[in-house]
This record gives sequence, structure tokens and C-alpha cells, in this order.
Amino acid sequence: MCELLGMSANVPTDIVFSFTGLMQRGGGTGPHRDGWGIAFYEGRGLRLFQDPAASVESEVARLVQRYPIKSETVIGHIRQANVGQVSLANTHPFVRELWGRNWCFAHNGQLADFAPSTSFYRPVGDTDSEAAFCDLLNRVRAAFPEPVPVEALLPVLIQAAQHYRRHGVFNCLLSNGDWLFAFCSTKLAQITRRAPFGPARLKDAEVLVDFQAETTPNDVVTVIATEPLTDNERWNLFQPGEWSLWRRGERLAHGQMGE
Amino acid sequence: MCELLGMSANVPTDIVFSFTGLMQRGGGTGPHRDGWGIAFYEGRGLRLFQDPAASVESEVARLVQRYPIKSETVIGHIRQANVGQVSLANTHPFVRELWGRNWCFAHNGQLADFAPSTSFYRPVGDTDSEAAFCDLLNRVRAAFPEPVPVEALLPVLIQAAQHYRRHGVFNCLLSNGDWLFAFCSTKLAQITRRAPFGPARLKDAEVLVDFQAETTPNDVVTVIATEPLTDNERWNLFQPGEWSLWRRGERLAHGQMGE
Repeated sequence: MCELLGMSANVPTDIVFSFTGLMQRGGGTGPHRDGWGIAFYEGRGLRLFQDPAASVESEVARLVQRYPIKSETVIGHIRQANVGQVSLANTHPFVRELWGRNWCFAHNGQLADFAPSTSFYRPVGDTDSEAAFCDLLNRVRAAFPEPVPVEALLPVLIQAAQHYRRHGVFNCLLSNGDWLFAFCSTKLAQITRRAPFGPARLKDAEVLVDFQAETTPNDVVTVIATEPLTDNERWNLFQPGEWSLWRRGERLAHGQMGE
Repeated sequence: MCELLGMSANVPTDIVFSFTGLMQRGGGTGPHRDGWGIAFYEGRGLRLFQDPAASVESEVARLVQRYPIKSETVIGHIRQANVGQVSLANTHPFVRELWGRNWCFAHNGQLADFAPSTSFYRPVGDTDSEAAFCDLLNRVRAAFPEPVPVEALLPVLIQAAQHYRRHGVFNCLLSNGDWLFAFCSTKLAQITRRAPFGPARLKDAEVLVDFQAETTPNDVVTVIATEPLTDNERWNLFQPGEWSLWRRGERLAHGQMGE
């Protein structure tokens, strides 16, 4: 299993605090030693840092911590390998271009008996996760060769997620830089921080941050993670089958699917 | 105009020496202040570092210099913007997946009256370079929906390069991680280092390296750059219309096209 981290914000926000907590689980307080990655949207561009090394030992992870990159949409992941060897090609998040946008995806879980037919998008590595991502994009492209608004797209995303979920555990984050989609099959938590901001204390490291000092009253920042990252705030736990769509920190749509 | 850097080697080799020289031209000894990027293949995975900031001032560039990443195939680029604003989305090299492989591309030059029809691959940013890369991949995919050996692919690459060249200046580097293709429309230089190795001195920085101490007798390392990076070695200058294909440091094929 792996851990996911996502952020959607209405102003470019640095995610160093949450990333610091997540990183500890990459071989420190958690067993996710098989690589990590984090993708920051910057306009239509995407900055991707990845390492097949454990995040607690990664030189690149230290750069990300030292050098706060501000972004409105972020997807991060730390990996404990189950399907696919430990290698850069098997390290999340995965990225593909669709409709002239960078789409980015990370998955927590494991899919059994999952062998989608190859079509346009094909996995580079050998994880079930990248195979699901490629299949999802192939479904989107088959349904909509030309761009459509996310509201029209949503049923395809939800239906695909439901399909993968029947093959095992499928918690995921997906973004095209404009919106962030989250699907929970077993475990996902979320918090939206807005004024009045207070202090937050990481569960996995001796770090306390006073968001009041780092924000303006209009900031809205939503963080999504496999498990709550702080121990003094109230996180919302997703239910199995629950999905949400975020843009600029605010929830645009949500719902829950049966088994 | 921009500067290109490519490497093809038969053993994982670090490119810190050449990158150090190139970086100086990014706002130091050269005017290419509008971003830089470098992509390292690692197995089928690709590590991409980019920054729209000048390379001499880039924190990420300092990481790449400090933290030698060994790779058999590398494509790097520093940019002086002509078409497209300075942004991450407009920063080379560009990457797309084709046939389950990461394809990577960087371009030096400028294309006029160039508006290829959109097809499967579409530019994320607004450079002529990314438009040419997408068009090239669309041509490859149209010719070969399924993977073919590079020998079969080569005529499509050369024909596409000839087409772009008629629109202006088109020096490029292209790789899928297995081979490295270089096309020269105006300016490109290349050197292959093999035993007996000697010392090399950068033109753009006070750096001398003794490759003898850093290599084994079987190493073969080819470096391709817009202009020679060292001043004490003999570089081969490409002729206009000349192209080469490299794998593991050795030249597999080469040729020259008329106007």
C-alpha cells in the first residue's frame, strides 16, 4: 500500500508542511520505502520530482523541503511496492498529455486480474496503477476526442473508478491542473483550511505551523491524504465509494457510489 | 536561439562536467536566460529537471550539479525565448509517451509560418518547438500505430526534420531512451570520448576534468552540443542537413540531406 497527498488551493501555496509529514512515512514512521514523487502545477506546466529511493533518505526530497514551490494544485505519493519492481518508471505520480494539458495521477491500492486492452496510452512501467491511469485516459479519449468541461467528464471518471474498484483497492487522485478529483475505495481523508486559520501540528514529525502567520484571510487550501497528517485538527474521512471534485480549494461536486 | 546538450553512453555516466559548461551560457557567458531543462533516462523512467529561471541562478540547476545523476541517455537545453513566453510549460525538453516509452525532445531554432494540424499529441505550451515535437510524434503514430525498430522509423524522423527545416532553423535532439537522434539544420557539434581518455577543459568555466580518472577503458561517451563545450579537444561539426543516430555512445547511422 501507499500514501497519497493532494492539494487544491485558491492561491499558490507551498505544501512543505504536509510534505514533511508525508515524507516521514517513507521509511521513517511508515513502511513506504519504495520511492516517492510529487507533482506541482505551475500554470499549464508541471514540475515533477520523483525518486525510487525512500523519501527519508532522498536528496531530491530534501530539495523539495528546502525550496518551497508554490502551486495551486499538487499530487504527491509515497510507495510501498506490491505490483512492479522498485524503479523510476514505476514511481507515482504518472503524467500524460491529453487535450494539450498535463494530466497527473497517483493511486493507493492494488488491483487483481486487471489487464486492460492496450490502446493509445500505454504504461511505461509495470504497475497496476499506471495501467489503470492509461486505461482511464483511453476511456476519456474514446468518449471525448475533443475537450469537454469537467462536469461532462465526471461520469466517465466515476464509472472508471467504480470499475477499477471492483478489481481491488482503488483510492486515487487525478488532476489536469484545473481541477483535482479524488476517489476513495477504502481510505482517504480531507481538510479544508480557511480563515480564521490556527496552528497545526504534524503527527509524524515534531513540526508545528501557525497557518495564521502564513496566509491571508481569503486563502482556501484543501489537503487530501490517505490518513490525517495533523493531530490537532478535524479531518473529514471519505466513505468507501465517495468521490470529490475540487477547484481552487473549494469542492465543486461530490457523491458516493454503492459497491 | 537556444543551446542543446545531448549524451549517449554505453555505461551510466554523469554529465555534470558538460552541464556545468552549458549552465554558464544560461545568463553567465551566454544570453540564454529564459529557462533550462535536462532529462535523464533511468531504465524506462525519465527524470526531468526544469526551471523557467536562468540556469546560473537556478536552485534546481545547483541540485543537478551537486547531485550527479548517472544515465546512458541525456537531453538538456537552455532557452533564449523567441516564440512563447517564459514559463514552465514552454521550457524544453518536452516529453510524451509513445508505444509505452518516454520520448524526449529539445529544439534549437525558430520556425516561421508553422501551424501543424492538431491530432493526437497537442502542445501544452505555445512554442513552435513543442508544436513540432507533437507533429513529429503524430507523424510517427500515423505511420506506425505499433512499435517498429528505429531503423524503420528513421525515414519518418528525417523526413519530418526536413519539413520543419524548411520553416526556419531546426536543430534538434530526440530520444526514446534506447537511441538518440540528432538533426542539424545550422549548428551542432559532437565528440565521442573513448580510451585513451585525456583531460578536458571547459570553455565557459574554470573547470578541468581528467576523464582518465573517471572512466574505465571500455567506456564510450558521445556528447552533442550546439557549440563545442571544451577548448582542448577536437569536436566534429555537423553540416547543414546532417543527421546522426546514436545508441550506447556509438553511431548507428548517419547521413546528410540537401536543402
